[in-house]
Amino acid sequence: MNYFSSNFKLGILGGGQLGKMLLYNTRKFDIQTFVLDNSDQAPSKIACDKFVKGDLLDFDTVYNFGKQVDVLTIEIENVNVDALEQLENENIKVYPSSKTLRQIQNKANQKLFYVDHNLPTAPFSRFAYLSEIEDAIKNGGLELPFVWKAARFGYDGNGVKIVRQLNDLEGLPAGECIAEEMIPFKNELAVIVARNVSGDIKTYPVVEMEFHPEANQVEYVICPARINDDVAKKAQDVALKTAEAFNHVGLLAVEMFQTQDDQILINEVAPRPHNSGHQTIEASFTSQFEQHLRAILDLPLGETKSKVGGIMVNLVGAEGHTGNVLYKNIENIMNLEGVTPHIYGKKQTRPFRKMGHVTIVNEDLSKARQIAEKVKNTIQVISE
Amino acid sequence: MNYFSSNFKLGILGGGQLGKMLLYNTRKFDIQTFVLDNSDQAPSKIACDKFVKGDLLDFDTVYNFGKQVDVLTIEIENVNVDALEQLENENIKVYPSSKTLRQIQNKANQKLFYVDHNLPTAPFSRFAYLSEIEDAIKNGGLELPFVWKAARFGYDGNGVKIVRQLNDLEGLPAGECIAEEMIPFKNELAVIVARNVSGDIKTYPVVEMEFHPEANQVEYVICPARINDDVAKKAQDVALKTAEAFNHVGLLAVEMFQTQDDQILINEVAPRPHNSGHQTIEASFTSQFEQHLRAILDLPLGETKSKVGGIMVNLVGAEGHTGNVLYKNIENIMNLEGVTPHIYGKKQTRPFRKMGHVTIVNEDLSKARQIAEKVKNTIQVISE
Repeated sequence: MNYFSSNFKLGILGGGQLGKMLLYNTRKFDIQTFVLDNSDQAPSKIACDKFVKGDLLDFDTVYNFGKQVDVLTIEIENVNVDALEQLENENIKVYPSSKTLRQIQNKANQKLFYVDHNLPTAPFSRFAYLSEIEDAIKNGGLELPFVWKAARFGYDGNGVKIVRQLNDLEGLPAGECIAEEMIPFKNELAVIVARNVSGDIKTYPVVEMEFHPEANQVEYVICPARINDDVAKKAQDVALKTAEAFNHVGLLAVEMFQTQDDQILINEVAPRPHNSGHQTIEASFTSQFEQHLRAILDLPLGETKSKVGGIMVNLVGAEGHTGNVLYKNIENIMNLEGVTPHIYGKKQTRPFRKMGHVTIVNEDLSKARQIAEKVKNTIQVISE
Repeated sequence: MNYFSSNFKLGILGGGQLGKMLLYNTRKFDIQTFVLDNSDQAPSKIACDKFVKGDLLDFDTVYNFGKQVDVLTIEIENVNVDALEQLENENIKVYPSSKTLRQIQNKANQKLFYVDHNLPTAPFSRFAYLSEIEDAIKNGGLELPFVWKAARFGYDGNGVKIVRQLNDLEGLPAGECIAEEMIPFKNELAVIVARNVSGDIKTYPVVEMEFHPEANQVEYVICPARINDDVAKKAQDVALKTAEAFNHVGLLAVEMFQTQDDQILINEVAPRPHNSGHQTIEASFTSQFEQHLRAILDLPLGETKSKVGGIMVNLVGAEGHTGNVLYKNIENIMNLEGVTPHIYGKKQTRPFRKMGHVTIVNEDLSKARQIAEKVKNTIQVISE
C-alpha cells in the first residue's frame, strides 16, 4: 500500500493528548486522518481531517468508523474490541490487534499472559469479585499487605491500591480484580519497544520513573535511567520478549520494577505512545509518535538513540485548586536552559489532574535533573 | 498579557506550510489561533481554531481579520501593509511591524535600508521600469553582467535573473527593479536571529546553503556552516545588527554572501520562519517555529544551539514531471540513519516546485552530509 498517496486513510480511536501529538506527525507524512472520540471537545478535533463524535465502547460506532479507513490504531485502550475483531475479519488493518488489546485490557488476563509466556512479573491471585479477596484474607489464603488492582478501566493511579489491613478494601469497586505481591523495588523503569508490520523491532533507552508518593502519578521520567548496563540490558531484553510474545505492531511501553536484587519484573504494558516516552520528542532521534506511525505503516523504524539527556516532568493540578486553570510562573521556567512546556489545553484544573508536561534536555543529564527540579518547584498549576 | 489564558488569540496571515509548522507549536502552548489565507485548500486549515478564506492583499479583509485577535503575525510577506498599520494604530500587536514589512516587501527599499544603516550589501542601482535598465546599459551607465531583481513579489528564484547580455532582459516584468553587482562568492550563508518584544536577542548558528544551479532554489542547508570561526562571528554580527536596525520582533532570517576575501554582504532578509531554519526542528534545542512564538509573545527566548549536526534537503518536483505527485523511494530514505521527511501535502507536482523537505541529523556533520547526498539521489518527486 502506498501510504504517501492521497487516498490512504488512517483512523485513530481516541482524540486525547496522545492522539493530538500523533496527528502532528501524520502531517509530516501528509497522511489523511480520521479520529473518533467520546467528546466533542477532544484535543485532536482541530488536528485531523475528519472528526467523529461517538462512543468508543459501542460496537456499531467503532465498526462504522473503522470501515472508512485503511489502517486503524488507538491512543486509548478502552475501546470496543469486538468491533476491532470484526474489522480485522473484513481486512481492515488494526494495530495493535484486537487479540493484543483483549489480553491487555483486562489486567488479570495480562498477568496470565506473562505467566504463560515465561515473562517475569510479580506473583498474584485473581478474584472474580472483591468479596472473594475478603474471604481469602479471612481464611488465610491471602496475606497482607498486597497490591489490589482492578482488572479493568484503571488508569493514572486509579484502580490500584495498597491494602495493608482489611478495611483498606472499603469503598473499592466490587468487580474482578487481582491481588499482587508487594515487591520492594529500587526503581521503576520503562522501555518503549517499536515493532513494525514486517517484524523489525527496536527499543528506546531504558527510562527511570519517579512517582509522586501520594497521587501515584509519574513525577519525573529520566532518560537514560541511571542504572548499570547489566540491568539496562536485562530490562531491554524483557521488553523485546514481551513485544514479540504479543506479536505486537506499533509501540509497546513496558513498565517494569527493578527489584532489590536487580531482577526485572513487568508491571504493566501500554500498546501505544506513552507518558514514559514524551521526552523522545525533544531528546531522541525519532519521537515515539513518529515511531508509532512508522511501525503501523510498515515503514522502516527510525533511530531510537538520544541526541541529549532528557527529563520529563508531569504538570498536574495542585492540591486545593479546582476551576479555571492558570499556569503560574510558566514564563520563569521557559527562561531555564532546554525547557519546553507542553500544555494540553484542558480548561479546568483539579488536584492531580494531568494538565501537561515539561521536557528538559541537556547534554549533561545531572544538570537536566537539577533544572527539572527547579521547573517542578517553580511552575504551579492552580485555579484563577 | 497572559498568553496561557483561554481568551488570548493569535492571528497568522498566510496558511501555507510555514504557518502549519508554526501552528503545531501553538498547540504546545495551547494558544488559540486564527488563520487567513487566499486559498480554501491552505495546509493550515485543519491545524487552527478558526480559518478565514480571504485576500491577503485586500485592506478590509486583513483589517477585519486582525481586529479579532490580540497578536498578529505573518508567514508570508505579501500582505496588505496599510491594514497592518491601521491595526497597530488601534493597538493590535503586529509582529513584524508594518514599518519593517514595508521596508522589506520592496527589495529596492530593503537595499536602501542597508545602505542607510551601514549594513554591508552588494552595490546596486534602482530603476522604476525595466526599460530604464535597457537605457542605462545602452548609454554606459550600467555594466554587464549584473543581477536583475524585481522590487516586488519575487520568491524562490522567481524575480531574480543574471543578465549577461542585453537580450537576457527579454520577457522580464516591466516594473520596478534593481540591478545588483554580481559578487563572486565562496558561500551563501544564513543566520536566523530571534528578538522578542522586550528586546532580548539571540542568533542561531550560521548555516551554509548550496543552491541548485538551474532552479536557483536551495538544495542543501548545512548547520553549522563549514566556515572558520572568524567568518561565522562576522556573519552573526551582521545578522544581529540587521535585526536591531529593523527594531525587529520575531524571527529574522538574514541571507548573506561570503565573498572571496571573506567579507559578509547581506543578500536579503525574511521576517519570519524560513527555509534556512527547517533543520532546527530536529537539530536545535529550540525549533525556529517555537522561537518565533516565544519572540512575538514576549516569552524568554529558547536555546539556539544545536543538539547534533543537521542538514536540510529541499524536495522539489523532478524535471519532466507534472501531475499527481508520487514520492518514489521514500521508504528507502527512511531506512537511512537520522532521516525525517516532511511532506507538505501538495497534490500536484511540477518541475522545481517545493513539495517538502528532508532533515538529516547526525553527531558527525560529514556523515550527515554523505547521508544527505544519498537522500537526494534516492528519493524522486515525480508524477504518477
